[in-house]
Amino acid sequence: MPIYYLCLMQLPSSLLENAVNEFAKLPGIGKKTALRMVLYLLKQDVASVENFSEIIAKMRRDIKFCQRCHNISDGDICAICANSFRNQRIICVVENIRDVIAIESTQQFNGTYHVLGGIISPLDGIGPDQLNIESLVYRTEKEQTEELVFALSPNIQGDTTIYYIQKKMHHLSCRVTTIARGIAFGGELEYADELTLARSISNRLPVEKFVKL
Amino acid sequence: MPIYYLCLMQLPSSLLENAVNEFAKLPGIGKKTALRMVLYLLKQDVASVENFSEIIAKMRRDIKFCQRCHNISDGDICAICANSFRNQRIICVVENIRDVIAIESTQQFNGTYHVLGGIISPLDGIGPDQLNIESLVYRTEKEQTEELVFALSPNIQGDTTIYYIQKKMHHLSCRVTTIARGIAFGGELEYADELTLARSISNRLPVEKFVKL
Repeated sequence: MPIYYLCLMQLPSSLLENAVNEFAKLPGIGKKTALRMVLYLLKQDVASVENFSEIIAKMRRDIKFCQRCHNISDGDICAICANSFRNQRIICVVENIRDVIAIESTQQFNGTYHVLGGIISPLDGIGPDQLNIESLVYRTEKEQTEELVFALSPNIQGDTTIYYIQKKMHHLSCRVTTIARGIAFGGELEYADELTLARSISNRLPVEKFVKL
Repeated sequence: MPIYYLCLMQLPSSLLENAVNEFAKLPGIGKKTALRMVLYLLKQDVASVENFSEIIAKMRRDIKFCQRCHNISDGDICAICANSFRNQRIICVVENIRDVIAIESTQQFNGTYHVLGGIISPLDGIGPDQLNIESLVYRTEKEQTEELVFALSPNIQGDTTIYYIQKKMHHLSCRVTTIARGIAFGGELEYADELTLARSISNRLPVEKFVKL
């Protein structure tokens, strides 16, 4: 029956096919979406597609990572670390760069960051040595950091990472906190899982503090 | 209230921001998806990202369009037009290259194509002169085409285009057909619109012909 052949997609040109295959490597992009993107680029003029391609190559080639917090940066030190209006004595510890962007978008945090580059996860083969933990301990000690705010994923791996780092720093007098876990804004109480609801009750806040935000 | 700031997304590097903006120009890609793609590319090594960028630029620079049918091609004549096993006397008239790929995937058509590059749509400012209609008439006459199969979008614009081309060719003795319109495979009868259902009834087929496919 010819119906089974429908999944094949034969492209009329190898140049097109190569470009589609490259786009299909990107996360969340299948062959059909990739084809749509490539045909869009085909409609643009040559100069703007060459500009597109050059910007991507340049980004990968020239981008740097901040030597202090491992965030993405244009120079040796990122804009957040270089900003003297921010509280350099508070470090928010995050898993990756997307978390930095997410927290920055809230405009609620005025300290600095430290990007671990992952969390401890033995099942995925990620141990403490592969993460930027040494530099965090060194930095906390040298800079006499006042507070370490952990903003890691709320799961076993995240908790393990917090526990590991805390143990490494037991000799320092730095305050250690973690972002609040509870019912999400707009979430339905009855659909929250027991653990989240339990934490949300045990970490309850006085109403005046809650309204302030 | 700080909640309204959430739609802002401040990126820590201008190189990153440029790359995200470029990806966000692609159809169906928003800023968040673009960021996800760019961060994926950042994790790859420099050589493979440069390869990605080069393949895209090369595709736009070097791709050609078939001089006969206006399909995408690696050379002057596309693989379909150059294939002597295909019936060169049948032309399937389509709107764009994606339609060629879609019909090719069915493996049900063994003729050649003609890509119009759009359909007549006065509201969008697209007249017959912007489409590859002249070359279709010239080609049909010169090649003594036996059949012209219209596979255009089933709407007013598509019907107008068919009508216009047919009038232009009234002096030729070529057979003109259009792909069948009816209830889609797997579609529910009760949800089909009246026009489709009406066409599907008036164009009904003897069962033996239907089962053959």
